[in-house]
Amino acid sequence: MADKAQIQEAIKTQGEVVRKLKAEKASKEQIDEEVAKLLELKVQLGGDEGRHQFTLKTAKGTRDYNPKQMAIREKVFNTIISCFKRHGAENIDTPVFELKETLTGKYGEDSKLIYDLKDQGGELLSLRYDLTVPFARYLAMNKVTNIKRYHIAKVYRRDNPAMTRGRYREFYQCDFDIAGQYDPMIPDAECLKIVHEILSELELGDFRIKVNDRRILDGMFAVCGVPDDKFRTICSTVDKLDKVSWEDVRSEMVKEKGLSEEAADQIGQYVSLQGGMDLAERLLQDAKMSQSKQACAGLTDMKQLFSYLQLFQVTDKVVFDLSLARGLDYYTGVIYEAILTQTGPVPVAAAQNGAGEKAEEGVSVGSVAGGGRYDGLVGMFDPKGRKVPCVGVSIGIERVFSIMEQKAEASAEKVRTTETQVMVASAQKNLLEERLRLTAELWNAGIKAEVMYKKNPKLLSQLQHCEDSGIPLVAILGEQELKDGVVKLRTVHSREEIDVSRDKLVEEIKRRTSDV
Amino acid sequence: MADKAQIQEAIKTQGEVVRKLKAEKASKEQIDEEVAKLLELKVQLGGDEGRHQFTLKTAKGTRDYNPKQMAIREKVFNTIISCFKRHGAENIDTPVFELKETLTGKYGEDSKLIYDLKDQGGELLSLRYDLTVPFARYLAMNKVTNIKRYHIAKVYRRDNPAMTRGRYREFYQCDFDIAGQYDPMIPDAECLKIVHEILSELELGDFRIKVNDRRILDGMFAVCGVPDDKFRTICSTVDKLDKVSWEDVRSEMVKEKGLSEEAADQIGQYVSLQGGMDLAERLLQDAKMSQSKQACAGLTDMKQLFSYLQLFQVTDKVVFDLSLARGLDYYTGVIYEAILTQTGPVPVAAAQNGAGEKAEEGVSVGSVAGGGRYDGLVGMFDPKGRKVPCVGVSIGIERVFSIMEQKAEASAEKVRTTETQVMVASAQKNLLEERLRLTAELWNAGIKAEVMYKKNPKLLSQLQHCEDSGIPLVAILGEQELKDGVVKLRTVHSREEIDVSRDKLVEEIKRRTSDV
Repeated sequence: MADKAQIQEAIKTQGEVVRKLKAEKASKEQIDEEVAKLLELKVQLGGDEGRHQFTLKTAKGTRDYNPKQMAIREKVFNTIISCFKRHGAENIDTPVFELKETLTGKYGEDSKLIYDLKDQGGELLSLRYDLTVPFARYLAMNKVTNIKRYHIAKVYRRDNPAMTRGRYREFYQCDFDIAGQYDPMIPDAECLKIVHEILSELELGDFRIKVNDRRILDGMFAVCGVPDDKFRTICSTVDKLDKVSWEDVRSEMVKEKGLSEEAADQIGQYVSLQGGMDLAERLLQDAKMSQSKQACAGLTDMKQLFSYLQLFQVTDKVVFDLSLARGLDYYTGVIYEAILTQTGPVPVAAAQNGAGEKAEEGVSVGSVAGGGRYDGLVGMFDPKGRKVPCVGVSIGIERVFSIMEQKAEASAEKVRTTETQVMVASAQKNLLEERLRLTAELWNAGIKAEVMYKKNPKLLSQLQHCEDSGIPLVAILGEQELKDGVVKLRTVHSREEIDVSRDKLVEEIKRRTSDV
Repeated sequence: MADKAQIQEAIKTQGEVVRKLKAEKASKEQIDEEVAKLLELKVQLGGDEGRHQFTLKTAKGTRDYNPKQMAIREKVFNTIISCFKRHGAENIDTPVFELKETLTGKYGEDSKLIYDLKDQGGELLSLRYDLTVPFARYLAMNKVTNIKRYHIAKVYRRDNPAMTRGRYREFYQCDFDIAGQYDPMIPDAECLKIVHEILSELELGDFRIKVNDRRILDGMFAVCGVPDDKFRTICSTVDKLDKVSWEDVRSEMVKEKGLSEEAADQIGQYVSLQGGMDLAERLLQDAKMSQSKQACAGLTDMKQLFSYLQLFQVTDKVVFDLSLARGLDYYTGVIYEAILTQTGPVPVAAAQNGAGEKAEEGVSVGSVAGGGRYDGLVGMFDPKGRKVPCVGVSIGIERVFSIMEQKAEASAEKVRTTETQVMVASAQKNLLEERLRLTAELWNAGIKAEVMYKKNPKLLSQLQHCEDSGIPLVAILGEQELKDGVVKLRTVHSREEIDVSRDKLVEEIKRRTSDV
């Protein structure tokens, strides 16, 4: 332990760091981080009366959700779940941790990001990294060969968090998958329809869904002269095209991965292509591409996919993009990724919220949904290697939350965090018992009601609570009302008051709040 | 690694263990456990073609939820959440893991059951053990001094699982807490009202809510001559009274904890007492009890509590029980626990389900809810020790699930796992495109619709799917219908069919399924 004077010196220095950041209007996240360091130093110094001091923070890369954030989250989940149910999906849940071996060998290089549990005797466990591998384990374990299911749950990655952009170490995934042996591209098209529906309904601005196929990528690599054993690593490099320029990608291929310049240039021509069904048709005629059986199979399916997407009327947002590669190893066919393209309203909101978000102005939140076909994953778990073809999509909800939160922040409309319909109040003293009795009556009738936990609260503070939390009605009791068998029903926003007979009160409250 | 012959021998022996258990109709859990051992041995032996073999199981003490279980869970959650919202509660969420130090020193002996994460560099983390400590951390960290919130989430305990009785290592808690400085016993009474509402609405059979107060217990210990430093350990022993007899408890007090026989016998007289407000009044007059200021404060509040419970009309289920002690250290006032008393219908269902549950016939699932007042916990986190009085209740939902599952199993009524309203089908070939087009129309109109992912499915298999999954309507397309601009709408249970004009279809489906 460092000596007291040293720590005091460190506190002084750290205090200046915090002050400086605040003066510069640095991001809240940055300030919070430095304040946390300052607090830790203060803890080291020892608190008053030597009481144990806690570091008051959540684990790195995680956050609490306050009631306002939860209200937004509930709204987003409702939209997503409604869509999944509209498409006839069942719901499953799996534990937050799996046997470590279940996750081994599924994520390639990203395996280093898996959280392991401490060996406390017994099994070796890891926190789930996604919902797809537990789903495949579930199918194999229960010998399920066809199911359409959704699963909404938190997953865990020891990644570098960038919380202002919605990148966390604990985050939600909303997964929809169709498992089963079906005719080509029908379930695949439904997954894209679902992404289209959800992103439209959430009103996040314009978006685009890129699609490609692992078979087209592999075929392209083959005809461009990429050696078989380099397919995967070159695919990872192509995957970076949404973040870095073609020049950088080309240089990585040639210099780091030892690809010939000719091969790289040929790839370069293909990955610049974007289109729709026409592009798939054109590539089927392409002298080189048509030499690869794999590519042809992928392109024929791509045509089929677009024909179904036309029936679903979603082709306006879908682009066949040969540069889309996706990181994960387990994809075997169609892959897709949705990005928000409209950077307009969101950064404005971010700038308004004044937390020094300027550096991020115009920066897109990136991919908000992704998925594809993985026909081999279940077979990896089945003792006899029996395959169950699967295709699915995962909605990355934290980024959506970030946007919705910023929108709510910028909007004049107040987010309600409760659904309370009526506050049971009194203007006079000594009416606690009467208030409690009436409140219980309302609860028993299914009315959402609140009452102040004070013997004699002031009427003003009762009304103020309604204003603050958006409660639309107040049921006011007084000696006279009790004598008359009525309740004074006050509308908070208009301040109108009418007497309602006690036995009509429930009905009247229901009538007035039926649109809430 | 053991040699092959040894493993083969072990497999043979283990196989016999499994066969024997099956013959004895042992519990599913027991059989599953032994089968898992068998599978592990087979894995050791190496699979066909040397492919890596997985142990196909979930971690000990955890389980997957299949769609049927999820449907039941959703129903239970809806009941609970509706009640919490009816009482004006806001919702929060916290991360699944906390800094290890946040949990340290909060759970007494039970701390050994906390799951720690592996030290992979960075912070030391643990999975949350309950939702109360994270809530207190949240309040202190965000300087919240009053809130009524609910939180429904999974918690983790490395306990001995007894899964058939709903005891898991990963399980849900549904917590409702009221934080803030209020007049005595009003929020406390609301917590009990909530337990009463939820247990009534879930229709789990009769129940009882025991209440007591830590101050009454401590006062009782004092007047019975328990030394101050033995209060806590004697309290733990009293806590066992719901599981073991008074004789055993007395013996533990005297022989293990060194209490005098006189003190033990005096305690014995008090802890046998049960009653209502009358008992609180009687004890306030009790020559010994009335000597303890603490006990008197607790008893006066108990009287107050019962007066509020009378207003809430819930005294029929509430018993003031001096033997209730509760395990956790952090309670400072009122404590309570709800138990199901009706063992009737449940074990019958369990017996019917034929999984060898006989041994548990008549065994109560024990406590399904518990809670109390903890006025000191937030102060443990606040840097200046500022206290925020809190009272809350936690509904232990896994036990409720177990009962609901058994009920569903025993009931003739089928649990639907989707909400699909209509299946879009065709009797003839080559109508896939028309089916997809109509399905998309229905989705876009907010109708929950399914379509088979086959080019030419048989009508019979389409109808069979409706029967299996409870879909009430089928929209059948054929050449003639397309020509006439109609759809044949079939009611699955009655087999009636009528032609509906295509532009009236959405309306007609909504009308027919409005009660679904």
